[in-house]
Parts: sequence; C-alpha cells; structure tokens
Amino acid sequence: MDYLKDERKKAQFDVDVMKVVWAGSRESFLVSDRMAKLVANDPAFEKFSKPMLSRKELFKNTLRKAAYAWKLINDLRLSEEEAKWLRHYIDEPNYTDLQWEMFVPAIQGQCTEEQKKKWLPLAQSMQIIGSYAQTELGHGSNVQGLETTATFDAQMDEFVIHSPTLTSSKWWPGGAGKVATHAIVYARLIINAQFHGVHGFMVQLRSLEDHSPLPGITVGDIGLKFGHGAYNTMDNGVLRFDHVRIPRDHMLMRVSQVTKEGKFVQSDVPRQLIYGTMVSVRQTIVADASKALSRAVCIATRYSAVRRQFGSRNGGPETQVIDYKTQQSRLFPLLASAYAFRFVSEWLKSLNKDVKQRLEDKDFSTLPEAHACTAGLKSLTTAATADGIEECRKLCGGHGYLVSSGLPELFAYYVPACTYEGENVVMMLQVARFLMKTVSELGYKKPVGTTAYMGRAKTLILSNCVIQTSEEWLNSGAIVEAFEARAARMAVGCGKRLAKYENPDEGFAELSIDLVEASLAHCQLIVVSKFIEKLELEIPGKGVKQLLEVLSYVYALSLLHKHQGDFLATGYLTPKQASLANDQLRTLYSKVRPNAIALVDSFNHTDHYLSSILGRYDGDVYPKLYEAAFKDPFNDSDIADGIYEYVQPILKQKLQSAKL
Amino acid sequence: MDYLKDERKKAQFDVDVMKVVWAGSRESFLVSDRMAKLVANDPAFEKFSKPMLSRKELFKNTLRKAAYAWKLINDLRLSEEEAKWLRHYIDEPNYTDLQWEMFVPAIQGQCTEEQKKKWLPLAQSMQIIGSYAQTELGHGSNVQGLETTATFDAQMDEFVIHSPTLTSSKWWPGGAGKVATHAIVYARLIINAQFHGVHGFMVQLRSLEDHSPLPGITVGDIGLKFGHGAYNTMDNGVLRFDHVRIPRDHMLMRVSQVTKEGKFVQSDVPRQLIYGTMVSVRQTIVADASKALSRAVCIATRYSAVRRQFGSRNGGPETQVIDYKTQQSRLFPLLASAYAFRFVSEWLKSLNKDVKQRLEDKDFSTLPEAHACTAGLKSLTTAATADGIEECRKLCGGHGYLVSSGLPELFAYYVPACTYEGENVVMMLQVARFLMKTVSELGYKKPVGTTAYMGRAKTLILSNCVIQTSEEWLNSGAIVEAFEARAARMAVGCGKRLAKYENPDEGFAELSIDLVEASLAHCQLIVVSKFIEKLELEIPGKGVKQLLEVLSYVYALSLLHKHQGDFLATGYLTPKQASLANDQLRTLYSKVRPNAIALVDSFNHTDHYLSSILGRYDGDVYPKLYEAAFKDPFNDSDIADGIYEYVQPILKQKLQSAKL
Repeated sequence: MDYLKDERKKAQFDVDVMKVVWAGSRESFLVSDRMAKLVANDPAFEKFSKPMLSRKELFKNTLRKAAYAWKLINDLRLSEEEAKWLRHYIDEPNYTDLQWEMFVPAIQGQCTEEQKKKWLPLAQSMQIIGSYAQTELGHGSNVQGLETTATFDAQMDEFVIHSPTLTSSKWWPGGAGKVATHAIVYARLIINAQFHGVHGFMVQLRSLEDHSPLPGITVGDIGLKFGHGAYNTMDNGVLRFDHVRIPRDHMLMRVSQVTKEGKFVQSDVPRQLIYGTMVSVRQTIVADASKALSRAVCIATRYSAVRRQFGSRNGGPETQVIDYKTQQSRLFPLLASAYAFRFVSEWLKSLNKDVKQRLEDKDFSTLPEAHACTAGLKSLTTAATADGIEECRKLCGGHGYLVSSGLPELFAYYVPACTYEGENVVMMLQVARFLMKTVSELGYKKPVGTTAYMGRAKTLILSNCVIQTSEEWLNSGAIVEAFEARAARMAVGCGKRLAKYENPDEGFAELSIDLVEASLAHCQLIVVSKFIEKLELEIPGKGVKQLLEVLSYVYALSLLHKHQGDFLATGYLTPKQASLANDQLRTLYSKVRPNAIALVDSFNHTDHYLSSILGRYDGDVYPKLYEAAFKDPFNDSDIADGIYEYVQPILKQKLQSAKL
Repeated sequence: MDYLKDERKKAQFDVDVMKVVWAGSRESFLVSDRMAKLVANDPAFEKFSKPMLSRKELFKNTLRKAAYAWKLINDLRLSEEEAKWLRHYIDEPNYTDLQWEMFVPAIQGQCTEEQKKKWLPLAQSMQIIGSYAQTELGHGSNVQGLETTATFDAQMDEFVIHSPTLTSSKWWPGGAGKVATHAIVYARLIINAQFHGVHGFMVQLRSLEDHSPLPGITVGDIGLKFGHGAYNTMDNGVLRFDHVRIPRDHMLMRVSQVTKEGKFVQSDVPRQLIYGTMVSVRQTIVADASKALSRAVCIATRYSAVRRQFGSRNGGPETQVIDYKTQQSRLFPLLASAYAFRFVSEWLKSLNKDVKQRLEDKDFSTLPEAHACTAGLKSLTTAATADGIEECRKLCGGHGYLVSSGLPELFAYYVPACTYEGENVVMMLQVARFLMKTVSELGYKKPVGTTAYMGRAKTLILSNCVIQTSEEWLNSGAIVEAFEARAARMAVGCGKRLAKYENPDEGFAELSIDLVEASLAHCQLIVVSKFIEKLELEIPGKGVKQLLEVLSYVYALSLLHKHQGDFLATGYLTPKQASLANDQLRTLYSKVRPNAIALVDSFNHTDHYLSSILGRYDGDVYPKLYEAAFKDPFNDSDIADGIYEYVQPILKQKLQSAKL
C-alpha cells in the first residue's frame, strides 16, 4: 500500500528523467541505482538496529561489513566507481574510507615512481591498511604548527619519528585507533637541527602478523563522538611515537627529498600538485553535502505529507502539514538547496578536472581561483547542510527526535564536515584573501572565472535594480545581476576599508567578520549562477526543466530574503523590490507544493539508505513507528532492570533499607 | 594549577557580585551553590562515563540516582527549592521530573479539593508515581484532535478509557515507559455518544505490588532518542488502553464534572486557571534556556582561551583563538544572550506571579498578553539556545565533536525544547494572533504591558533614527526605540495586508511567514527592553553594572546586525546607521574580551555540571583529553573485537575462507 500515491500523482514532471538529471548522467544513474539496490537487498548490510549496539559491538559489526563489502567487490569484480557507490550506500564510516580516499591518493600524489611501485600494490590489495595522520591534539587548522618531528639520522640513513610533547600526539586520524597497519604521518623534518617544513612519512604502526602495536608506538581510540552510530563506527586514533625509526626512503619524496648525505632537495615536481589533491578532497565534500541534505529533505518532505495537524472541517481529515506556508518556507528552500548544491558540485568537479589537467601541464594560472572556489563552496554547502538537516528534524515535530527518524544520526554523522578538511570560517577567510587580491588588482588584471563579474564592478556599483513587479523577479538575468551587485559592492567595500590600514594583516584581522560576509555573498552568487547556467543547457523530459527553474528561483529568492540586509545595505535593491521578491517566493512555494514528493523521489534514495521510518517511501509511518518501539531490546521485559532495586522501595516506602 | 589564572586576572568587575546577579539574589545563589557542590562532591552522581553505558545500564543507573536523590532529599530534609536544585544539578532527565513538574501540579491545578486530599499525599510521598499522557502518535500540537476516548458508563458509574486507533496510542509521556504506576490521561469525554471536549483522567497503569502492567494496558518505551545519554535516561512511553475502566471520580473534576447521572457540568472555576499552568510551565522553559546556553558558552569560552592556533611570532606562543574577531563575533553575542535570557526569564517569572494572583481574583485581563509573551519568549529563547549550543560546539573545532567535550550531549538533550510544550512556530503564530488583535484594536483600546509601545505606533512609523556616529549607538533609549520602530512597522504592515483578505483565516495562513517574522521582532524587543530595564536598577559591585551594559549593547546590536534587513526594509535605519551600529559592535567585542572568562565563571557552573573536558575550570584540557581516551573501555585491549575475524583475513589475503 502506497500512502503517498496521491501525492505522486500530482507531479507535473517526469520523475524518471529527473532522476537522471540528479544523478548527472544515465550511466551514473544506472550504476548508483544498481549499487543502492545491491546494498539494500543484502541483509548483511542491515543498519537499522545499529544505534542499539554498544561501541564494541558496533565496531565489530562495521569490521564485518567492511570485510564483506571487500569480498563482494572482488567476487563481483566491481569497477572502482561501482565500489565507491557500494561503500557510499553501506553508509557507515570505516577504515576503508581512509584507505581509498586518503591513503592510496596520497601515495599516488606524493610518492616517487619507485615508492609507488612498492606501496601501491600493497595498499590496493589491502595487504597493508593505511591511515592519514596529520591533525594533532594541539594543531588542526595550522598545519605548519604540527609538532611531531622526523629527525634525519645520516649515520643510520633513517628518520626518527617522535612525539616531543603531549599536544604533538596525533589525534583524529581515522582507522588508526584499531585497524591501520600503516600511516602517512605528517611531521616537521629536521636535518642537522635545521627545520625544513612539514612532510609526510610512511610509518608502520602495527605488526602484520598479530596486529599488536610496534615498539615505540602508543595507539588507541580517542573515544566516543556525537551520535550513536554516526562516526563511532570509525576508530579515530590517538597516536604517539617514541623515537620510532624508519628508513630514509619512507619519506614521501615526490616533491621534496632528503639525500643519503642529509641534503634537503626540492624536486622539479611543483608543490602545487599537492594543493590539487586538497582541492579534490574538498570537491568531494561539496558533492557529499548535496547527498546528505537530500536525505534529510526527503525524510522531512515525505513525513510532512503524511502528517496532518489542525484544520479539520466537518470531521474531515486534518490539513497535511506540508500545506502550511510556514512549513513550506522552511522546507522548500532546503529542497531547492539540495538541487543547487548537486549542480554546483558537478560544475566544481569539471572545474577541478580542468585544473588537474593544467597542473600536469604546469599551468598554475587557474589554481588560486579553483582553490578559493572550492574552499568557499565547501564552507557554504557544509554549513547550510548541517543547519538544514537539523531544520528538517525540527520540521518533523517530536518524532524527528527519535533515532528511528534517521535525522539525529544523520546530523551527528554530518556536522564534522563543517570542521574537517578546512574549518568553515578559515575557509571563508581564504576566499576573502583571494577576493581582496582580485579587488586590489582590478586596475590592471582582468578577473576570470567565478570572479569575472568583478571586472564589471564599477557598473555593478552604480546601476540599481529596475524591477517593478513581483513577476519580473522570474528572470534569471535580473537575479544573477542582483547577486553580482551585492557581492561586488561588499567586496569592493571591504577593499576600500582595508586600504585604510597601514598594516594589511592587522586590517584583515580587524575586518575579518565583514570579509567573511563578503565571501559568503560571493559564494552564494556562484551557486546561484551555476544553477542558472545548468538550465541554459537542454534538459529533456516533460516538465523537468520547468520544475528546475522553479527551484532555482526558490533557491535564489529565499537567499535574497534571508540576506535582505545585504541587498538593502548596499543599496542595489529598494525595500519595495525586496518585498516584491518575497511575494514571488510565496507564489513559487505553491508551484513546488504539488511536485514536492516527486522532487524528493527523484533523489532515488532507497529506504535502506534513508534508514528512517518517517521518510519511508510508502508513507506507512505510524504502524512502523509502533512496531519499532516494541522491537527495541529495552522492551524485552515489562519490568525494566532496576525497577525492583530502585523504584519498588520508593513506592513501598522502604527506601531506608534499600541498597543504593 | 589554574591555566586560566591570567585570564581571570584580566577581569574588570567583581565576579562574586556578578554570581549573585546571575543567580537572582544572594539566597538563590547560596542555595544553588550549596546544591551544586553537594551533587558534584558525591560520587553517587558521577556522570562522565554515562555515554558508554548501554540503554539498559544507563536506565538502571538513572533509577539508582533518582532513588539516592530521593533518599537524600528526605534524609537532609531538603526544602522544595533545594530539592529542585538538587535534581537540576544531577542533570539527568527521569521520571521524578514528571512527578514534580507535571503530575503533582496537575493534581493541584485540576483536581477538586476532595480529589486532592486523596491523590496529593500519595504523589508527594511517592507511593504512586505519575506520568502525564497527553501527546499521541498522531497528535501533538492539536490537543483537540486527540483520539483516546473516555466513555461514561452510567450504569457502572465508570469511564471506559480506550485507544480506538493506532494513532491514538499515547506516545512520548515521560516515565510511562517503565516506571509510572499512574498517569493523567487526556481523552475525549463521551457521554451518550456526545463529545464533551478533552479532559484529564487518573488511570492506574501498573500494579503497585509487582509493577506489571494492569489488564487492558499495553505499555512500553518508544525507543532511542537523539544522543547517548540526553533524554535516553527517560522512559518516554507508548501506551494503549483496551476498554480500561476507572471510577467516575478519577476524572479530574475541578473545572468540568460528570454527575452520577451522566450530566456534563462546568464548575464555577474558570478554565483560564488551566492556561495559567501552561504559562508557568513555559516560563520554566525560558529559565532553562539561559541555563543551557550558559553551559555551552562557558565551555566554548574557556576552551577558546586555552586553544591557540596560528599567529606565532618568532617562535612565541600562537594566538588564543578567543582573540580572533571571527571567533568573538560568534561567541560573544551568545554570551550576551545567556545573560539576556536570564534576565528576561526573571521578569517573566514575576509577570506570571502577578497573572496567577489576578487569576485567583478572577481578573483575566492580563492573561492574553502574558500568554503571548510566554509563548513568544519560549520560542525565541529555545530556538536561539539550540542553535547557540551547536555554534559553541563548532567554536571548539574538531574536539567539540567528542562526547567528552560535553557539547554533543548538551545539544541532544536540549533540542526537544524547541518542540515540546508548544512547537516554536506554532508559538510564534499565537503571538502573531495576539499582535494582530492588538493592531486591529489600536483605534479604541490602549495596548498595555509589552505591547504598550504599539500605542505610539504612528510616531514610531513616521520618525526615523537620528544617530550619526558609532558612539551614539551606546544609548539604550535609541536602541529600544529602534527595536520598537522595527516591531511596530512590521506588525502594522502585516495588519494592513491582512485587512485586504475577505476571509481573515485565509489571510492569516497566507501571510503566516511574515507574521512569524513580525512576532520575532516583537519578542526580540521584549528581551532587549527587559535587559535594559534591569540596568535601570541599582547594581552594586565594582564594574558589574558596566559589564552588563556592555553585554546589553552586544546583545541588541548583534541582533540589529543579524536582522539588518528588517531595520532597513522598514526604513527606520539608513544603511549608514546600520553600518555604524556594526562598527560599535566590534568595539564592544574588545570590551568583552578581557572579561570573557570571568563572565562565564559568574555562571558558577561546577565541572561536574558542565561535564566537559574542554570547559574545565582550570583549563587543563589536553592532558585530560588524552587520559580520557585511554580510560575508554574501547581501549581495554590493543586488539579490538573483530580484528582477528574481519581484518586479518584481508591483510593475509585469505578473505575467501573467512566467515563473514
């Protein structure tokens, strides 16, 4: 029985085509759909009962799933892409994420050919399992401040890896706590008491025979993290080295080398290649943001159509909560954001592919812009997604607080994305540096790519919006221009104030709050424009393009309303125009409404992946909530542990003699 | 060793006096301080290891603590106020919260004298333990939509309590899952097939002998909720009735009665008294918001002073992250909010005392305003606190994600406050109804209390802000006037647009988004004004008043910046004036900075209560984080469960023969 059937009938577009648009291509759709179903239909990957497990049981269960998945990947001879989707749908962070997303790429990117020949086959067949040990107890964002040392001992032709202080303990590396046999350890290279920067070193942590930590290595798990399952399936590690010796050739030497004689040499491989890797990791985070947000939005949208409250007339059914404007005004901008982030992440992927190609050709010209873009979008999308997941939870009312709604775990799982791989405010400050540089060079250097609009800064600052009716806001050109004007005015405004400071660093610190706001305005412009550019392409399928247009307007105009202050303060919009935009936004919500369920169906999430009773495809929420409660092991017995010892003595007024 | 000693020396005010101001009075300070220490020093109340327990262990442990606390309360003959503080500092939701905050007050408020004589002594001595069963699987906000029935059987002089549908199952009542022997059950009263509204009935759930559920009662726990500990120490229940019979006098009959003959009678006790109870529960929630926010802010502020990142000069120490403007701009408004919420909750308490007195005297004139005020402040403070806790978590960087930071659990514990006792958006819509009524009556009815400013609406709409320098913003009169002008303009604007609709309900639904915004503006004005009014009283102690003034400005001007769009759109401020306010805000942050640690010390939170390594009073963060990791039971053994079974076969390439 499909309780959402009527909702699905309301759709004014072709859902199957939209699924392909969401996936990026028919091929992508097919492979991800196949892997999603493979995981969903295999009882080995059951995950609903996960939150009831103790940490040890949870972890053991994860190890089992990871092994089972690896066997599947080999048995079915899955391609790299298929394997990636498989891991994605298993939906459980574990050491293999590190292996494939950090360890292997680091070997590929930072090792010499000779080193690659040695390490890659071992890593790719998982004869060694690697972690990536950068962050320390005392240092995260400031990589140059890491304290672990790698001191060269020329006599022995070895490096001595050492943790000189408590705060130098490696802290957070995933997989290191219990599993990894090796780690790429970032440490300060010291040769003859001279510091030569922070570099990566391959260090074996555990015996390949019996898995016990090697001499000189102290290692453990850093303890519980947010949520029940979430990242607690991962053994984030604490790691200390007591003068651990490794051969010289265990330094990752593609970019920098230490010779047998202890000479520090830079190879002719440009350092920028390493930045390229960072950029590509962050690009993945942007793609993941749209996935995580789409899950939350799917759950909240479906449950908002199931749930009814108030508004019954003559004993008829109550109003579906999705019909309330207040619900729509919170939910639909998030639905639109999921699509917006999806498209901007696709664009970012192509940008990075281009940058990578250029780097190989030693063309570094586009790297700064790509770097700023990726940092900014990482910050924007992860912050909006984290907030959006929690908003979706609240939109489900009380039941959203149950773990079985899927939302608390999704939130707990997602939020570290705001911190890891570049803390979000630090990221926006990097965008700001790039923006301020662009502004300061406007006189003689033509800005390109996502900053091209800055070339028209003068016009953007002088001209004002000419919109006079709410309908005129249905104009992508006018919208982009408004976002460009706002971003340009804020950036140029910051530039002018910055110029007044004698010491630019001091000025930058003093104005950092405004700079972050200007960077956000710039990044929102990118997302808005890329959404609109996507719609300039041909998109087949009945109603598909029309609905995406509606969503692009919802995204842009809801941002415009939220940041009304910027648009008014910079003077590009009048209060009347902002108010007209808001009127239009309300009309747009009515256009989204009949398509809401179909728009979340288009994400093609399986019930297994969503892991949410409220978000079930069939809308059969209440009976399943009820069933789930009685399946909880806590309900195994009517009389809970502790009732006889600690409640009965109270009721029977015999507390004095009770053993407490 | 106090690592924050230097920070404490910087304080420019008398911390001991501020503690008293925060507590509300010397007496309040003394009693809460005494109870906080009593709990902190008693190993029976240890709570740091809580997140490692399984649900059953966790629950049993909570039962033990609750029994121990009840014994302590009796042995030490604690006053009601002392007992309340004791429970507060034990910091673990459990069935006794329901007993004292819902069950006993409901008996007091809704029972006849005769009923009180019967039930109160039993409840107060805990010979019965009660839950409060209102919310159902299908109905929360819409209490009139509850489906459980209480059908009068005149022949037997009994009510038959029944759950006619799946969605009528009671869902959420605290303590009902495993502990409560009784519950006040809200049900539709039916006499001779006639519906007579929703009323409360005393229903016994479990045998007082052996605690087993009584015949006809199906009861269990609804399952895991957000977080490890958080509300999982509470047995929120699912509860169904299969034609359960109770004597007629088990209906709570103070306001409405059913006679032996089956006649439905309203007593002369006004229904408004029941609203009075709801208002007082919500007032407590506002008070709790400031407590929860102050905990998060205390943790984030202390750790921001401990943590250093970047900015080292010549090998000297790096910059404390609390010195970054971006950190200050996120943290200090929350610090100011904690104080603002504290003071507005004190004012609300006195308002409610006054209302209660008036109700007893059958003066209902101030109830609507008090009701709107409480609903609005409940919504404002809980929403800001929930967001604020998560922001504090992010402000702690990666380590905030560890459960040992205290912040994930605090968030998981706190967020349901946005939903329970009146969902936050529903609350703001109630404020909106009241505001629109006030606006529509402006011609002939003088608004009073928190809406008095509406009487000056005409002036507030015509006059504009005259501020010309950033210094002029340090003027509480100018600030209140700005918030009044914004709120009045938004409310009157809504009123005008609403008047255009023929059907007012339709108009209200259509404009609900704007109405919520107008209500928020009104409520923010209340918080700002009450903070400022507090400062009009004499406050002794070196620098105390000065610092509170700084905080009141930080609170108001950070709101002004955040909602700049409102102030500009309504035309009261020019962009220049808004920008001057923002400049002043930055200056104010510098004034807060040296006092930040002392301002959070003034909350007088014990380390036990904070339960946070990052927020330790002595700032000794890193060694304790390291210790805590190795104390985690997951680190009992170097080789985790599952390594031999599921990791070694991979490493040794023997996965084919492994049992997965």
